[in-house]
Amino acid sequence: MRLDVVTIFPEYLDPLNVSLVGKARARGQLNVHVHDLRSWTYDRHNTVDDTPYGGGPGMVMKTEPWGDALDSVLADGYDAGARRPALIVPTPSGRPFSQTLAVELSKRPWLIFTPARYEGIDRRVIDEYATRMPVYEVSIGDYVLAGGEAAVLVITEAVARLLPGVLGNAASHQDDSFAPGAMANLLEGPVYTKPPEWRGRDIPDVLLSGHHGKIARWRRDEALRRTTANRPDLIERCDPKAFDKKDREMLSILGWAPDPEGEPHGRFWRRLEGVEE
Amino acid sequence: MRLDVVTIFPEYLDPLNVSLVGKARARGQLNVHVHDLRSWTYDRHNTVDDTPYGGGPGMVMKTEPWGDALDSVLADGYDAGARRPALIVPTPSGRPFSQTLAVELSKRPWLIFTPARYEGIDRRVIDEYATRMPVYEVSIGDYVLAGGEAAVLVITEAVARLLPGVLGNAASHQDDSFAPGAMANLLEGPVYTKPPEWRGRDIPDVLLSGHHGKIARWRRDEALRRTTANRPDLIERCDPKAFDKKDREMLSILGWAPDPEGEPHGRFWRRLEGVEE
Repeated sequence: MRLDVVTIFPEYLDPLNVSLVGKARARGQLNVHVHDLRSWTYDRHNTVDDTPYGGGPGMVMKTEPWGDALDSVLADGYDAGARRPALIVPTPSGRPFSQTLAVELSKRPWLIFTPARYEGIDRRVIDEYATRMPVYEVSIGDYVLAGGEAAVLVITEAVARLLPGVLGNAASHQDDSFAPGAMANLLEGPVYTKPPEWRGRDIPDVLLSGHHGKIARWRRDEALRRTTANRPDLIERCDPKAFDKKDREMLSILGWAPDPEGEPHGRFWRRLEGVEE
Repeated sequence: MRLDVVTIFPEYLDPLNVSLVGKARARGQLNVHVHDLRSWTYDRHNTVDDTPYGGGPGMVMKTEPWGDALDSVLADGYDAGARRPALIVPTPSGRPFSQTLAVELSKRPWLIFTPARYEGIDRRVIDEYATRMPVYEVSIGDYVLAGGEAAVLVITEAVARLLPGVLGNAASHQDDSFAPGAMANLLEGPVYTKPPEWRGRDIPDVLLSGHHGKIARWRRDEALRRTTANRPDLIERCDPKAFDKKDREMLSILGWAPDPEGEPHGRFWRRLEGVEE
């Protein structure tokens, strides 16, 4: 996979040399190019921004440097044999980045990231390149960053770990929070390792029982406990068919019940009143 | 504000020297300490992980290095006069990081981050320090990273830009996506700057009109358009009282209507069938 990043803070992308992404680059699984947007400015101040049309606070990133940068990156990539580029535009106004989208992006051969600063990039840049390639405007979450660079690190890492051969143990994917399958929509519960006692704290007995069925059940109960506590929104949307009898018992203990009235509105479960969180 | 980060990849945190956070450090508004977790291992291999109790794939981070590291960081901080620490644990099993939580964290004097790798940290570490300080287990989004370091960069940046004096122009906060107030729950629409024409693409006429009321209305319509397209989940939950007559007209044009039946289930608006997205 080829990755290009155009940014006014190339050094912010230094973590792409570290850890999982760094190793994938060293092995040739990822081919990463970080470009300084200011290389495509031609005035003495290397200007990349100007005041917004229509007034208001903040600055908007100008069309010309982005247009010249993207043309140049595309030409370089095509020359080097890269094909089927996609533009990834991190922005709080985008659609949510999710594990499903990470999987989708991990199947593409070439991603070009345009992390912006200030109030964002002049819209015409996105409109222009959308005529030539798929554009993904994505938000990594409902919070505001100073720029898109941290989002690029997040998206890159989520995508890179899904590439074949990048994670050592492929089995590690299967129990991931948000992975499809049995644990879909459930958060992982607590984990423990040696020693069995630390500062007067023991590990749960069941984990020493050697009884695989009981351990699997305990883990699922803990996943249900964690999810109802931290992500009631995920439980609400869970298809009742995804839960067996024991799951339902645990949900009942945790104060949750099926919600037939809410079902047409996408809410399958509701927290019972009077049950403590 | 004092920030401590304990990690096995200290160099991943190098972006904390760059841009907004780097400048806030240079000005003395942020006091950042990055620590290598392996400094608190005492075996020849600097072991920080071991196999999970109960079996399964992946490795779990051990109690002892984390316990010793956190004790040492706490002692250092208290000696230096820091008070009221809070522990920030990035994990996909946490509650969602949001702009509201960024605001809450920005008011605390001392944040200690524990980005984990592998399957996470032995639960007893969190349980232990939760007896001494508030613990925030937070997830930056519904996707899986290789480790918590990228999440620390995200949270740090979202928090740092809210500190007094860190952003040049305080007015820039007000129109942020996800900011409280008039634009609460709406995404920002497109932005434009000079030149008025670029590669045959013009800017919307209204932005040259000089008519503040019309420009504000256009921006709000574009915000509604963007939000219904990319974040129907946000529109659904919008309090109908937040919308004026013109907003309702625009929502109707976009194919959305009030949903009295959904209201008790937290869904105030619904997309009409047969309307193209």
